[in-house]
Amino acid sequence: MFQSFSATTRPEDGIGRLADLRAHLGSQGLDGFLVPRADAHQGEYVAPCDERLAWLTGFTGSAGFAAILPDIAGVFVDGRYRVQVKAQVADAFTPVDWPEVKLGDWLIEHMPGGGEIGFDPWLHTIDEIARLEAKVGPHQISLAPVDNAVDTIWGEVRPGRPEGAASPYPEALAGVSSADKRAEVLSVLRENGQGAVVLTLPDSINWLLNIRGADLAHLPVVQAFAILDASGAMAVFSDPEKFQGLDLGPDVKIVPWDAFEPALAELKGPVRVDPATCPDAVRWALDGAGTQIVKGADPCLLPKARKSPAELAGSAEAHLRDGVAMARFLHWFDETATGGTLTEIDVVKRLEAFRADSGALRDISFDTIAGAGPNGAIVHYRVTEETNAPVLMGQLFLIDSGGQYEDGTTDITRTLPVGEVGTEEKTCFTLVLKGMIAIHRARFPKGVSGAHLDALARAPLWATGRDYDHGTGHGVGVYLSVHEGPQRLARTGQVPFEPGMILSNEPGYYREGAFGIRIENLIYVVEAPEGADTHRDMLGFETLTFAPIDRRLIVAEMLAPEERDWLNAYHAEVLKKIGPRLEDGGFSATATWLRDACAPI
Amino acid sequence: MFQSFSATTRPEDGIGRLADLRAHLGSQGLDGFLVPRADAHQGEYVAPCDERLAWLTGFTGSAGFAAILPDIAGVFVDGRYRVQVKAQVADAFTPVDWPEVKLGDWLIEHMPGGGEIGFDPWLHTIDEIARLEAKVGPHQISLAPVDNAVDTIWGEVRPGRPEGAASPYPEALAGVSSADKRAEVLSVLRENGQGAVVLTLPDSINWLLNIRGADLAHLPVVQAFAILDASGAMAVFSDPEKFQGLDLGPDVKIVPWDAFEPALAELKGPVRVDPATCPDAVRWALDGAGTQIVKGADPCLLPKARKSPAELAGSAEAHLRDGVAMARFLHWFDETATGGTLTEIDVVKRLEAFRADSGALRDISFDTIAGAGPNGAIVHYRVTEETNAPVLMGQLFLIDSGGQYEDGTTDITRTLPVGEVGTEEKTCFTLVLKGMIAIHRARFPKGVSGAHLDALARAPLWATGRDYDHGTGHGVGVYLSVHEGPQRLARTGQVPFEPGMILSNEPGYYREGAFGIRIENLIYVVEAPEGADTHRDMLGFETLTFAPIDRRLIVAEMLAPEERDWLNAYHAEVLKKIGPRLEDGGFSATATWLRDACAPI
Repeated sequence: MFQSFSATTRPEDGIGRLADLRAHLGSQGLDGFLVPRADAHQGEYVAPCDERLAWLTGFTGSAGFAAILPDIAGVFVDGRYRVQVKAQVADAFTPVDWPEVKLGDWLIEHMPGGGEIGFDPWLHTIDEIARLEAKVGPHQISLAPVDNAVDTIWGEVRPGRPEGAASPYPEALAGVSSADKRAEVLSVLRENGQGAVVLTLPDSINWLLNIRGADLAHLPVVQAFAILDASGAMAVFSDPEKFQGLDLGPDVKIVPWDAFEPALAELKGPVRVDPATCPDAVRWALDGAGTQIVKGADPCLLPKARKSPAELAGSAEAHLRDGVAMARFLHWFDETATGGTLTEIDVVKRLEAFRADSGALRDISFDTIAGAGPNGAIVHYRVTEETNAPVLMGQLFLIDSGGQYEDGTTDITRTLPVGEVGTEEKTCFTLVLKGMIAIHRARFPKGVSGAHLDALARAPLWATGRDYDHGTGHGVGVYLSVHEGPQRLARTGQVPFEPGMILSNEPGYYREGAFGIRIENLIYVVEAPEGADTHRDMLGFETLTFAPIDRRLIVAEMLAPEERDWLNAYHAEVLKKIGPRLEDGGFSATATWLRDACAPI
Repeated sequence: MFQSFSATTRPEDGIGRLADLRAHLGSQGLDGFLVPRADAHQGEYVAPCDERLAWLTGFTGSAGFAAILPDIAGVFVDGRYRVQVKAQVADAFTPVDWPEVKLGDWLIEHMPGGGEIGFDPWLHTIDEIARLEAKVGPHQISLAPVDNAVDTIWGEVRPGRPEGAASPYPEALAGVSSADKRAEVLSVLRENGQGAVVLTLPDSINWLLNIRGADLAHLPVVQAFAILDASGAMAVFSDPEKFQGLDLGPDVKIVPWDAFEPALAELKGPVRVDPATCPDAVRWALDGAGTQIVKGADPCLLPKARKSPAELAGSAEAHLRDGVAMARFLHWFDETATGGTLTEIDVVKRLEAFRADSGALRDISFDTIAGAGPNGAIVHYRVTEETNAPVLMGQLFLIDSGGQYEDGTTDITRTLPVGEVGTEEKTCFTLVLKGMIAIHRARFPKGVSGAHLDALARAPLWATGRDYDHGTGHGVGVYLSVHEGPQRLARTGQVPFEPGMILSNEPGYYREGAFGIRIENLIYVVEAPEGADTHRDMLGFETLTFAPIDRRLIVAEMLAPEERDWLNAYHAEVLKKIGPRLEDGGFSATATWLRDACAPI
C-alpha cells in the first residue's frame, strides 16, 4: 500500500514540545516563532524530517502554519481543516480560521507592544516575508531570520533527510532532451539579460534534467536546489550520493547541499528568482553579496506545462492503463457495495490493488479521497482508522484517486450510488455533470485563461443558487506533481491556456453532513479542429480520462441535447478504448459490465 | 444636434505644424516629444483646447498618441482606427499599430543612440511614465517633464479653457448628500492612515460634490482637480467663476487652477494618489516637497459605482423615457428604411430628434454609431459627410446610441434588418443574442468579477469558431460618464460585482466588409431573489433597457427553452412598461407596432 490509515500524531505530544520550544525561544530573546507546513521547496508533499508543523502541534493537514507566542500558539488552518485541527491539537494550541484571519493582523493583535518574531528563512518565500514585514513593520514587530527553533528542540529523534536515488527519465517519454530544455530556459535568461536563475522547485529541476527521484511520497522527485548560469553551466545542490552512476552531461555538476549558500554569494547579477516560491534565505544570500535580484517566474514552469507530444502520448497510455483499473474497480464496487459490510478503507485498498495489478504503478498520485455519504462532503477527506465509515445503502460514495506511472500521472474522481439514492442527489449530480460537460466542450480563443472559463463549469449550479468552494481544475504533471502550475482552471487562473497543458476538470457540489459530489476527468489543451463554420483559430480540450460516469445518477431530461450527445459520445469512446483492453486482460465480465455502463442515455 | 458630421481636421495642416514643433524641440535641446490624446483628467472626452493630437496630426480618434522624433513622427492607433488614421494624417506622419508595437520598443528602435524625450507631465499618468522609464531607461533614453511643446506652437489660435457653469445635482436624484459621500471617502483615508487624497477625475469630483457641469460634450461635468484632507476640508481647483452662486458648504472651498501645485507642495503625507489616472505632475510636486505618496485607487470609484436606490430609480425612469424614443425610432425605421433614400446621417438625426422630443434630453451620451451594412462591422464607426452610406435592402443596420438625462445615462444598441436579410446574418444574430441572454440570466456568488462572467456571453460564438474583439460590457454612470469603472464585464474586469453597479451587456459579431451585429441592454447588479432551491446568497442582474430586440433576426430553433422564455418575458415587460407611455404620449400607432414587435416567439 502507498497509503496509510493510521494517525501519525497524538495531541498530547504537542504540550511538552510547545513548552520546550517556548523555553528555547526565551533563551534566544525571541518573542515568537513561525512554523509553516512548507519545506524549502514549497511543494505539496514534504519529507518526514520536514513535518515540523505536525510534529509540534499534531496537525497533519496539507496546508497551514503555526505562530508561537509566549501566551498563545495559533494554528492557522483553512476551511478544509476546521474540524480536523480540533481533533488533532491539544488545548495548548488555538486553532485560527485562516485566511479569514491573516497572520499579520493576528500578530498585531496579540503583540500590542511589538516584538521580534523568528522565522526560518528557508521555509518562507520571498513574497511571504515581504508581505508580512510590510504589514507588521509599522506596528513595531520585526521579523528575524534564525536557525530553525523546532529543529533545535526536535534534536536527535528527527528523521534524516530523504535519501532516494535519482534515476534518468527516458527521453522517449520526455520527448525533449535535457540539453534542449536547458537551451530553451537559457534563451529566456538571455533575452532578459539575466546572468543566472536560481531554481528551488524539485519538479522544475527534475523536469529540466530529465530525471526522477524517490525522496517523497506520491511525488517522484529527487530534492535539490539548482543554479543555471547564462553560460549554460548548471549546478545541482543535493546529496551527491543520490546521483551516483547518473551521467547528466558535461554542463551539469552535482554538489553538496551546503555549497548552495556560498555559490549564491558568488553569482554575477542580475539573478532571476521566483519570489512566489524561492526561500527568503536565497534573497538574504544574494543581497548579502550585493548581487542584483530580478524577480520573475521560475522559467521552467511554462515549458514544463506545455507537454511535448511524447508526454501527451505517454499520458494517454497511462490513462488507458488506469482506465482498465478504474473499470475493474467500478465493476467491483457495483457488485460489492450493497450496504453494510464494506468500509471506506476497504474501497481504497481495493482500488489501489486494481491499479497495482497493471504492474506499472510506481505510486499513487495522492492519498485516495474516499468518502461515504456525509464524508463525501469533506472536500479533502482522508480516511483513517478512526473516521473509517461503512458504505451504506442509499448513500453517494465519492472517490478521488490517481496513479503515478512512469509515462504519466492520473487523477480521476467518480461519484457512485450505493443502491437507490434520492432525487436531490441526482439533481445535484446532473448539475455538476452539466458544468463538467461545458468545460469538455469549451472552445475558446488564445489568451483565455482559467479565470475566464471557470464560470462555465459553475453556471448550471449558480443558476440554482448552488456553488462549490474549490477551483474547477488544476494543472497536472507527467510522472511529476499531480498539482502543478502555472495554469489553473479557477477564478485565480491568470495564465493563458496553451496547447499541451494538462488540466483537471472537476466541478462538484457538497451538502455538509449529507453528501458530496465531484466528477473529474483530465483534459489537455489542443488547437481546436477547424469546422466548416470556424472563422478563427480556437483552442479546445481533448480528453485523457476514460471511465464511465454513473448513468443512474443522471436526470436525463435536465441535459440539453448537445450535453446528452457529448455524454453518449464520451461513453462510446470509453467502451471503444477500454473494452478491448479488458477482454485482452481476461476481464470479460468487466467488459460486459462496461457495455451496460456505457450505453447511450 | 449634439453631434456633428463634418471633418474637423485636414491632413495638410499637420505638415507645417509638425515642422514648427520640430524646430521648437530643437531650440529646447530635446530629441523628441510625446503628444497624447489625453488631457489632465484622463477622460474619454476632451475640450477643444486639449485636442492637441488632432490639431497636430489630424487624427481625431478617441484614443492614441504621437511620438515626434527628428526623423519620424509616429501616430500610434489601435485596431479601431487603422483605416481612419491613414485618411486623416499627412505622409509626414507614420501610423504605428498599437498596442502591438509598444511606445518603449519603438523609441528604442528609432533612437539607437539614446537621447532625451520631452513630455507634458500633466497629460501622462504616474503609471504610464514609470513603465516607460523602466523600459527605455536602460537604453540611454531619458524622459524630461517640460512645458507642453504643442501649446507653445499652437499659440494664440488655441481655443480657451471651457467655461461651462457648475450646477447642483439634486440630492433627490443622488440619494446621498455630498457630506455623506465625503464622510464615506474620509473613512477610507482614515482607515488607511492617509492624510489626504488627490482627486483628478472630474466624474469623481462631480459625484462627490453632487454637482454637474458643462465643460465637455456628452459628459456633463465641470473640470477640476481636488484635494480632500483627512480633516474633512476639500479644496477644488478650477475656475471659481464657474462656481459662482453655488453653495457647497463650509468644508469645500473653490480655488483657482494655479493654486493646485502650491497646495500639493504643502500637503502632509501620506497622500493617496491613483497612479493609474493621476498626472505625473502631481507626483513631481509631491516628491519635490518630500511628501510621502501612497498609491491607491481613487476612493470615489467604488462608492460611485455602487449606485444608490435613488440613482437606480432615476436610471430606470430615464430608461423608460428613452424607451419611448427608441420605440418611436424603431417603428419609424421599420416603416422608412425600405431601401435607397435613407442615409446613416438621416437615421442619426431622426433618433436624436425622438430623444429630444422627450423635452428632457440634456445631451447624447456619445456620438451615435450608426452603420449600414459593412459600416456596421467597424466597431467604433462614426458617420461623417464623407462616409455617409445609404441604407440598403438586404442589409443589417447597427445603431448604438444613448441619452444624457438629468436622472440617468442610457446606452442601447440594436441591430435591425432592412428588408429580408441572409441566413448567415440571422445565425450570427441569434448566437449573439444567446450570449446576451446568458448574461441577463446569470446568477453568481459574491467575489465574481467581469473577468469571470465575460465567457458566458461568448460561449455560443466560441462554439462556432466566432468571437468579438471588445469587452462584453462597461460600467455606466448616472448623468455622468457612459463609460465608467472600476467594474467591467470583460476579460480585464478584476473588480468584483456589487449590488447597484450598472453595466452594459453588449456582445457582438462583426464580419469585415459585410455586416456588424451588436445587441446592448444596460443592467445592474442585485442580490438575486431567493428561490426555493437557493442554497446560497447569489447576485444577479436586473434590466434597465426596455426596447424590442428584432424578432425577424432570430432563428427560434437555435434558442434553448430557457432562452426563449427569457426573450418572451423580456418582450412582455417592454410592452408593459413602454406601451402605456406611448398611448399616453399620443403615439398609438407606435403602441400598436410595439405589440407586434413584442409578440412571443
